[in-house]
Amino acid sequence: MGVTSKQPTTRSRKSPEEVRSAVHQAVIDLLSASGGAELTIPAIAQHAGVNHTSVYRRWGSREALLADVVTTRLERDWPLDDTGTLRGDLIAWVRAGVASIRTTEGRLLVRAVALSMPSGPDAQADRAQHFRRRLHAVERIRERATARGETPPPLESILDQLVAPLYLRAIFGIEPPASGYPELLVDRLLDSTGAPGTD
Amino acid sequence: MGVTSKQPTTRSRKSPEEVRSAVHQAVIDLLSASGGAELTIPAIAQHAGVNHTSVYRRWGSREALLADVVTTRLERDWPLDDTGTLRGDLIAWVRAGVASIRTTEGRLLVRAVALSMPSGPDAQADRAQHFRRRLHAVERIRERATARGETPPPLESILDQLVAPLYLRAIFGIEPPASGYPELLVDRLLDSTGAPGTD
Repeated sequence: MGVTSKQPTTRSRKSPEEVRSAVHQAVIDLLSASGGAELTIPAIAQHAGVNHTSVYRRWGSREALLADVVTTRLERDWPLDDTGTLRGDLIAWVRAGVASIRTTEGRLLVRAVALSMPSGPDAQADRAQHFRRRLHAVERIRERATARGETPPPLESILDQLVAPLYLRAIFGIEPPASGYPELLVDRLLDSTGAPGTD
Repeated sequence: MGVTSKQPTTRSRKSPEEVRSAVHQAVIDLLSASGGAELTIPAIAQHAGVNHTSVYRRWGSREALLADVVTTRLERDWPLDDTGTLRGDLIAWVRAGVASIRTTEGRLLVRAVALSMPSGPDAQADRAQHFRRRLHAVERIRERATARGETPPPLESILDQLVAPLYLRAIFGIEPPASGYPELLVDRLLDSTGAPGTD
């Protein structure tokens, strides 16, 4: 595992940011190795060279940790360029998403989102919150459009027409069309919701 | 587990159809209980009261078994009514899908599809085949439309505009809009792909 030589004293000297970084990388490494089948907090902590108690203390649960990794990585990989128009911002966002799910790590992150969803009928509020975090970028694009005087599509439409196709393709490993796919999805969305400036 | 009183002789007397039925039910029960975290072939076999060697012999892998359960259940739950028109068939299909993901079992089945996807870069062909099985119903609707002289939308568009929203909502537990959702998705699809008879 590459961590067996580390001593407890070394572990305790990691800064909070170092712990976070090591734990996040361990999640990615273990997802790559096993697809999530062996993604337990003790395994993650061992791989990261930190105490599993610190992981529990900081994140509380495997689901919360996965959610944090996904949010951080996806926000790094899907930058929120301000292109000056709603259409441009949405295309840039989808384009970054398409690029991300063309990579193994990107597909693993999306599968990690699915794996990390709390199950059970009593977890509805957790799932909804989990998902709102995923839509943070989209909310910012919508706010920017409104500030410009544009009318952004409803969140539900963005969910169904932009987010859903990317997630489905990532989970099933179905390649997006080679070219023009971000434009296709965004123009379909804007045409169907009648946002101005789309024809 | 309710199976401890069964003897090996009882186990071996199950007909192939009884084995299949018991194993399928065990998958659903274990998915309900644990969300998939403990969904191993030995656990499934024990819960079903069959030998795990029979499960391996029949299905080969956990992924193949999950795929079989999902196909069977979803085909039972999503009947393929012939309504006489492409639009009608698609709406009936989406309506059944929406009804299914409003149930706990339906959401679990969709999550099972995601969980059962083979991971790893060498599993692309398996994933594609796995997914084609999911699209069997849609293929039949398209064939029926063609036989009627209608022009069905491309499979890729159906994937992005009908299948993806249902899967995403099932995985995240996001409720579909209370009414008119099947019509909304289907009319968006038909409008965007310019199929005749949609306006």
